[in-house]
Amino acid sequence: MSFNTFGKLFRFTTWGESHGPAIGCVVDGCPPNISIKESDIQIELNKRKPGQSKFTTQRKEDDKVNILSGVFEGKSTGTPISLVIYNKDMRSRDYETIKNKFRPGHADYTYFKKYGIRDYRGGGRQSARETASRVAAGAIAKKVLETKIGKKFKVVGAVTQLGILGCDVSKWNDNYIKKNQLFCPDKSIIKLWEKYLLSVRKSGSSCGAIIEVRARGIPPGLGAPIYSKLDMDLAAAMMSINAVKGVNIGSGMNSAQLSGEQNSDEIFNKGKNTNFNSNNAGGILGGISSGQEIVVSFAVKPTSSILSSRKTIDKFGKNTSISVKGRHDPCVGIRAVPIGEAMMNCVLLDHYLMHKAQCK
Amino acid sequence: MSFNTFGKLFRFTTWGESHGPAIGCVVDGCPPNISIKESDIQIELNKRKPGQSKFTTQRKEDDKVNILSGVFEGKSTGTPISLVIYNKDMRSRDYETIKNKFRPGHADYTYFKKYGIRDYRGGGRQSARETASRVAAGAIAKKVLETKIGKKFKVVGAVTQLGILGCDVSKWNDNYIKKNQLFCPDKSIIKLWEKYLLSVRKSGSSCGAIIEVRARGIPPGLGAPIYSKLDMDLAAAMMSINAVKGVNIGSGMNSAQLSGEQNSDEIFNKGKNTNFNSNNAGGILGGISSGQEIVVSFAVKPTSSILSSRKTIDKFGKNTSISVKGRHDPCVGIRAVPIGEAMMNCVLLDHYLMHKAQCK
Amino acid sequence: MSFNTFGKLFRFTTWGESHGPAIGCVVDGCPPNISIKESDIQIELNKRKPGQSKFTTQRKEDDKVNILSGVFEGKSTGTPISLVIYNKDMRSRDYETIKNKFRPGHADYTYFKKYGIRDYRGGGRQSARETASRVAAGAIAKKVLETKIGKKFKVVGAVTQLGILGCDVSKWNDNYIKKNQLFCPDKSIIKLWEKYLLSVRKSGSSCGAIIEVRARGIPPGLGAPIYSKLDMDLAAAMMSINAVKGVNIGSGMNSAQLSGEQNSDEIFNKGKNTNFNSNNAGGILGGISSGQEIVVSFAVKPTSSILSSRKTIDKFGKNTSISVKGRHDPCVGIRAVPIGEAMMNCVLLDHYLMHKAQCK
Amino acid sequence: MSFNTFGKLFRFTTWGESHGPAIGCVVDGCPPNISIKESDIQIELNKRKPGQSKFTTQRKEDDKVNILSGVFEGKSTGTPISLVIYNKDMRSRDYETIKNKFRPGHADYTYFKKYGIRDYRGGGRQSARETASRVAAGAIAKKVLETKIGKKFKVVGAVTQLGILGCDVSKWNDNYIKKNQLFCPDKSIIKLWEKYLLSVRKSGSSCGAIIEVRARGIPPGLGAPIYSKLDMDLAAAMMSINAVKGVNIGSGMNSAQLSGEQNSDEIFNKGKNTNFNSNNAGGILGGISSGQEIVVSFAVKPTSSILSSRKTIDKFGKNTSISVKGRHDPCVGIRAVPIGEAMMNCVLLDHYLMHKAQCK
Repeated sequence: MSFNTFGKLFRFTTWGESHGPAIGCVVDGCPPNISIKESDIQIELNKRKPGQSKFTTQRKEDDKVNILSGVFEGKSTGTPISLVIYNKDMRSRDYETIKNKFRPGHADYTYFKKYGIRDYRGGGRQSARETASRVAAGAIAKKVLETKIGKKFKVVGAVTQLGILGCDVSKWNDNYIKKNQLFCPDKSIIKLWEKYLLSVRKSGSSCGAIIEVRARGIPPGLGAPIYSKLDMDLAAAMMSINAVKGVNIGSGMNSAQLSGEQNSDEIFNKGKNTNFNSNNAGGILGGISSGQEIVVSFAVKPTSSILSSRKTIDKFGKNTSISVKGRHDPCVGIRAVPIGEAMMNCVLLDHYLMHKAQCK
Repeated sequence: MSFNTFGKLFRFTTWGESHGPAIGCVVDGCPPNISIKESDIQIELNKRKPGQSKFTTQRKEDDKVNILSGVFEGKSTGTPISLVIYNKDMRSRDYETIKNKFRPGHADYTYFKKYGIRDYRGGGRQSARETASRVAAGAIAKKVLETKIGKKFKVVGAVTQLGILGCDVSKWNDNYIKKNQLFCPDKSIIKLWEKYLLSVRKSGSSCGAIIEVRARGIPPGLGAPIYSKLDMDLAAAMMSINAVKGVNIGSGMNSAQLSGEQNSDEIFNKGKNTNFNSNNAGGILGGISSGQEIVVSFAVKPTSSILSSRKTIDKFGKNTSISVKGRHDPCVGIRAVPIGEAMMNCVLLDHYLMHKAQCK
Repeated sequence: MSFNTFGKLFRFTTWGESHGPAIGCVVDGCPPNISIKESDIQIELNKRKPGQSKFTTQRKEDDKVNILSGVFEGKSTGTPISLVIYNKDMRSRDYETIKNKFRPGHADYTYFKKYGIRDYRGGGRQSARETASRVAAGAIAKKVLETKIGKKFKVVGAVTQLGILGCDVSKWNDNYIKKNQLFCPDKSIIKLWEKYLLSVRKSGSSCGAIIEVRARGIPPGLGAPIYSKLDMDLAAAMMSINAVKGVNIGSGMNSAQLSGEQNSDEIFNKGKNTNFNSNNAGGILGGISSGQEIVVSFAVKPTSSILSSRKTIDKFGKNTSISVKGRHDPCVGIRAVPIGEAMMNCVLLDHYLMHKAQCK
Repeated sequence: MSFNTFGKLFRFTTWGESHGPAIGCVVDGCPPNISIKESDIQIELNKRKPGQSKFTTQRKEDDKVNILSGVFEGKSTGTPISLVIYNKDMRSRDYETIKNKFRPGHADYTYFKKYGIRDYRGGGRQSARETASRVAAGAIAKKVLETKIGKKFKVVGAVTQLGILGCDVSKWNDNYIKKNQLFCPDKSIIKLWEKYLLSVRKSGSSCGAIIEVRARGIPPGLGAPIYSKLDMDLAAAMMSINAVKGVNIGSGMNSAQLSGEQNSDEIFNKGKNTNFNSNNAGGILGGISSGQEIVVSFAVKPTSSILSSRKTIDKFGKNTSISVKGRHDPCVGIRAVPIGEAMMNCVLLDHYLMHKAQCK
């Protein structure tokens, strides 16, 4: 896990800028003989694709993935899988007016301070466009885990808070999530969310979100203490997503307010199965999976590109102001759902392989 | 960052069990010619040491550090620095009664499921005793950063919430933190906290806490996108600490509820200095430090070792119950303050060196 | 350095199969603001390109490199540089007859035993075609080193033994190497070599070679003991090249036969310059560069694809025999010269950056 | 594999200076439930121990190993194993006279140029004393491989050339190697070698050696192309040993002189077993083990500490000369045999685990 590579045994390296000719990734360490088709990856990419509803940016991206290596006659060969997505519908001229200004809340200023040079078109490397590569890598991880663990394995994510509006997590419904454009798990809140989001969009403002990702069917034992703890790697994975500012495992930040009695999940056996009375731990104890559902949530800050004029400076050091027009999501958090799922899949497979190496 | 090693260029590897003969770490990648004395490390270790007040476990640990290599005539030589702390006051018999039971909220069950064997004495490797090694490594990182960056560099942590009781962060006072045993930054709340904590202790229960760590004097440019983002590595660092369940950067989870206008920190120049009107970003944009104060907070769950009887199973699969007597902290979060500071120091130095390598 | 990634701070990840749609690599950790053009890379690739003379395979490969990311307006941005070379002139049908047989001396058998599946077309991933990606990465490393170190920096490789025929290394001539198709450094031997190689080719046989790569202008201090020694990484780099079976640093294997007096290079100062009376060490002492010329040589075994019929087995376990027609180099060692240069450049830059991080 | 850490999944980190209080290592990634006793490690250390015969340095080192963590009730627990060896019989005063001079052939000069500081006592970190830590780590790797692979697994090393005197490798006898103090595999040469070595010692000179290490019972499939090739990692492992200047796999450097027909090892099946007519490949094809015996050899240069006066400079830049008295091996290569075996064991286990992770 270094620079542009994520993972230890299942590793992917992403590359590409928002307005360059292409983006892509190299997936390394994929076990051989796994059935992988471009369509397996495309399905996941389509979940993340912009331009699909009135709730996301109107930038049209085909996001069509091409497999350039590592798959032979429909099966992985154990060698690196190179995936490429060619960029289209790039309107670089949109960015000419802001090429010398640092957009507040964006990484324009910090990239420039770090590198002394930056590709300003669409944010260049700092653009969330990079996350398409992760979704592609995650699709491969998912295929491997489905093959190795079987049907009980499932990762599913949802938006559990949209701006100031939470939802009732106890009403979580996997099927419903797939059916609405906001990845909302709670049917009772959807109308309110849609109304709220359209008003945010209309006003040229933006809002944040909380995403929750759950993994089921994970055997106990995954996670390598101390510095490859499963929760540590999940926290890193989610925090690496653009605009994420906080990560919770299970009860997360709220666990500070619980008593020892409330927090520690009691254990009991029923037949041959080990059960827990609650899941404050989010399925992870001491950095190792317990066999419970793994629950991770993370906060995505509101889109920084807004219509309102904001104070800023330019690259020559002058005070100025900026108002970002272009085509932007009112809530980037929504499209973070498939990204969170992808990162979950990648981390789980990485730990699955590490566990197999050392302990099986 | 793998298994028991943390860091990329400044790396430390920890080892040791709670009731083994010793614990320690090997610090690798320390620049040469840095003045390092055992007392520099001991000062930091003493902050974490148990048995210092009525608010922490009465287990007495000298926690005396020994430098076994890498320092010659008071200066680092650039070679690995081996640090060892011999264990004392180990009462392994305390653990005989629970050696076959899995304590709820602890990693007893998951270690056993992973490895098929575990050193049950004091939690073995899963014990928070390991964190003494990190504090030692962090003390070295601190010395290096003080040498390289100079006086403006400072890392300071505090408890900002104790169980159900928050404090007023706007009253943060570095000096006051040092003077009270709860690392409280807000003088106005301390009496209430003490009263609360003693009642928690008396009842044999426990409570959680939120720790905030701030770093000042950090130049812009630290952090290596995409998968060595500064906030990603900080999230991983903090989540790797025992009992931590959530991590925030700047506004963290709360950023989900902010509007784009509220959240994005406006930028302006005053003379030659770049300033920001607010710090929701916690000093990090796009994974790179902005020059603002870096602000990380994390939640520590309540101590799982409590007096109340809890349902659990034993290693033979039988349902049973457990009540943990022994000597335990009512709030492990308090002693997490120097650990959080140490991890901050280590991550910052690691990124300082990485930035120097690629961009200077 | 793991799986398909080479390097620590300057890292490249290669991907692609001989007869897939493309091969390529992702170069990560390149410092920003380095002038990089496709033509800088193409020059190096052209040295390695087959089909250039009667001494190499007639397979025509354009080997045209495309930069897909990481370079903006002619300068590196510090983000990953993705390079792709589309495959052309692939005659997969050539391989149909041997798809179930394991060619002796090739990795057909071991890939199949490892992965249980393999892309047999042109050797798939095991093909030396992968080395084009390294040459591309090396071209970037070269540009960085030339920018950072300046004009005195130079890496140059040559063939110093062709099959049974050595050359006189004391006659080494950089300019002459460029002028002949065998990368021969010694003008006095070239006619003999050409005659020899044509006879090898005519008979359908093949021969091995020894390549020597020299680096000048390298400052003392590069190399990170113990397990990132400069010579260790160079040995790994060269041994990772297809068909390489031995690596020497300086006097190499011959040093076993020297006495302590003969071997240890005496040191003396002349003005401000430190000099050595000899260079048995090959410019590296204790894993660290001494400021002398760095000298690495390696042996490339003879091409395994020969006309003579050889005993082998097929994937069903049956004994059979094989005779490889196709288009093959009589001596793959010749085209290993630019590859050895590329690996030298990459290792040196990696250590240059590591040294800068820790010691400057 | 970075700085002072070797390995990917089975990793060890060494620390310590020749004349510091102790040396040691942390072994990480060891599978759980492996029977490990201090005596298992001590047996291997004793092979390397100086002061055992008239052929090695008279420095007496107990080299007694202590296990400080990771083993519980005689079994590995899957957590890091910390090993320490306390230094004794250190005569630092021996080094006072040379503390400002750079010994030719040693790393005195390069360490000083790199770090600007060095522990000159006994060479400090550059001393071959570090290799005791590797031998200890290798002993653990050996135990794991014996447990996992079983009785057919065996690694054995020998000296195959002593200075100018080779031996007849076809007379290799495992049992004989154990019985003589020179690790000679060929009984017919031993008298000559002893005579030669005593004369070298008497004259205050030194000689080099070639060590060959063989591994049997290794299943096909170990090795992860491209940049974790088994031969690449073995070359790195052997080149990292002090004073090693060349590494061969199988026919090694000599393969340059073979024809394609001579070099490629023919394959045939006999019953269910796959056999090869020769082993020029040294058991490795395309970076992956073939099931044949793995054969690695490496050259150790002559001891640089010799009685003869040698020209050198001091740290102030003055020309001077040096003659090293102290207690030194006339041929350090001899004690490199158990070190080579240890590195072979570590690399093989590392690849065994990697293969298990990805392909089983």
